[in-house]
Amino acid sequence: MRATLMYGAGDVRVETVPDPVLRAPTDAIVRTMRACVCGSDLHPYRSMHPSATGRPVGHELVAVVEEVGPEVRTVRVGDLVVVPFAYADNTCAFCREGLQTSCPHGGFYGNHEVGGLQAELARIPFADGSLAVVPDVDPASASDALLHSLLALSDVYLTGYHAAHVGAVGPRTTVAVVGDGAVGLSAVLASRRMGAERIILMGRHTDRTDLGRRWGATDVVAERGGEGVERVLELTGGEGAHVVLEAVGHMPAYEQSFGIVRPGGVISRVGVPQYESAPVGFGSLFGKNARLAGGPAPVRAYQDGAIADVLAGAIDPGLVFDTVLSLDDAAEAYRLMDSRASLKVSLRP
Amino acid sequence: MRATLMYGAGDVRVETVPDPVLRAPTDAIVRTMRACVCGSDLHPYRSMHPSATGRPVGHELVAVVEEVGPEVRTVRVGDLVVVPFAYADNTCAFCREGLQTSCPHGGFYGNHEVGGLQAELARIPFADGSLAVVPDVDPASASDALLHSLLALSDVYLTGYHAAHVGAVGPRTTVAVVGDGAVGLSAVLASRRMGAERIILMGRHTDRTDLGRRWGATDVVAERGGEGVERVLELTGGEGAHVVLEAVGHMPAYEQSFGIVRPGGVISRVGVPQYESAPVGFGSLFGKNARLAGGPAPVRAYQDGAIADVLAGAIDPGLVFDTVLSLDDAAEAYRLMDSRASLKVSLRP
Repeated sequence: MRATLMYGAGDVRVETVPDPVLRAPTDAIVRTMRACVCGSDLHPYRSMHPSATGRPVGHELVAVVEEVGPEVRTVRVGDLVVVPFAYADNTCAFCREGLQTSCPHGGFYGNHEVGGLQAELARIPFADGSLAVVPDVDPASASDALLHSLLALSDVYLTGYHAAHVGAVGPRTTVAVVGDGAVGLSAVLASRRMGAERIILMGRHTDRTDLGRRWGATDVVAERGGEGVERVLELTGGEGAHVVLEAVGHMPAYEQSFGIVRPGGVISRVGVPQYESAPVGFGSLFGKNARLAGGPAPVRAYQDGAIADVLAGAIDPGLVFDTVLSLDDAAEAYRLMDSRASLKVSLRP
Repeated sequence: MRATLMYGAGDVRVETVPDPVLRAPTDAIVRTMRACVCGSDLHPYRSMHPSATGRPVGHELVAVVEEVGPEVRTVRVGDLVVVPFAYADNTCAFCREGLQTSCPHGGFYGNHEVGGLQAELARIPFADGSLAVVPDVDPASASDALLHSLLALSDVYLTGYHAAHVGAVGPRTTVAVVGDGAVGLSAVLASRRMGAERIILMGRHTDRTDLGRRWGATDVVAERGGEGVERVLELTGGEGAHVVLEAVGHMPAYEQSFGIVRPGGVISRVGVPQYESAPVGFGSLFGKNARLAGGPAPVRAYQDGAIADVLAGAIDPGLVFDTVLSLDDAAEAYRLMDSRASLKVSLRP
């Protein structure tokens, strides 16, 4: 099959590799309908040390089940499925609590044990737990728009949703979203779904913030750093936002976040932190009783509801895909996203 | 009057200074019945740069109202009052939400604008907002035990309570308390009041952990650092504690906290952080969706309920006071607490 490997910073190649095979009786093999590149893929794309063997990449996928192991009970060959970006058994204590990213049997795609999902085929561990079946849709007749909205449930939309969920966004919440990438925009959409009365989007790319406005942003702040903080404070009567959704992962976004969070409010992070230590003392979080939340989104916990919302036309998270390329052009997809020429690129085999 | 001033690390003096006077029509002057030394007073006691003029210190007080300004409406001369460690108007948006420590008109005691409370008399700004009246108690006949339990509501017990409250401790919670000082022990008592089924106290001073057991600790872990983390993980089936109450403020306590918090759990800090930056990235908080909460306790929000609990005999937070000295011996009180010879020292004029 064709699969995407990263050999180092800026070095992405699509190569022919052996097809994956069932290894455990709970595995499934799925055939890709749409894969894509994630903002978090850009972190290694900018920093990975050269590797002689390459690393398989990708963790978002809409696919059709091609083969299942003898102990797979609920997923069937031919099912259209959304693949959560982390696999999990979905039966342990953490999974039952909705924290599938902490499943002791779970893990992440994109290594030599379980391959990457920017590929024609993939082996899915714990298929019953790790796949969300899309009911009553014939894969052959699914539109691009539908496939893209389903693909957004693999990670990006539900990562934005997780930020809003753990931030407890509700009707009386003033939300500030830091970052106008696909996750930030998704956080806007999720916040609107949760009834937020005010959603301030911090971003400076008009084509992106326009989608943010369409999805519910009531204010857009283009300024960054100290100026951006001042602007949000002005907009909120000097108090700041009840909930800050941080969808970037770099330190300036974090600094902006603690500058604009209201006393007693919460910073909910879903941008993978590119730092380990950060300010949390009296002058940043502690003094104003601001809270910090977030982490890798347990998207499996939210997928069944979100699939129903997509099928009902209540949400259209697939609009983040502004470019469609062939899987063979994955390197170009990375370039377009790295240069911000594309918001998010969909790949089809 | 006699008042306590700190002139530098290890240099505490009780001196005669001018009596405080009403400055604003909403002020009150109160006369001390009991004051005390806080664990947080030990931070400057260990690190303060020498000062020629000294700094008034102390922020915990049970007192009798001696004089009120013309705009004081609810507090009356002769009332027995508990003084929250931060003053606040108790009418603004933050105060109404129960976040009096973020009152824009509020502030802290222990400076030349508003004096310290380790003194015979004190000026209380916004007396109606800043004083909690103890109903139906004649100050002259109040026992030492009652005065001490009320004094604990100035800060220490309700700071422990705040930790448990923002950590959302409840019946199905496994709590771990880091620190066996007066705040940590108070956090044990508050957690028991909230119904926590398991309370693991981390501390190595048997006289202190014995009080912790009396107040509801189900397990005591004497080990620190990596060994302490291992022990708590053993006690919790490898998962960690749902809620970690961090009542120290030093980095090793923080590191211990993120080591023992369960995925999806919360670290609630009330020890004033003696650091500004700390680990919060993938390897500490983010990867396991652990949350961080806490800050200066808005004790005024909790005082009316806690005063009723004390008067009803439901809680006895005054047991943290193991030593009583004269206010003139405040320097000795600091020495006893700094050397850990005393858990907490009560001062009477």
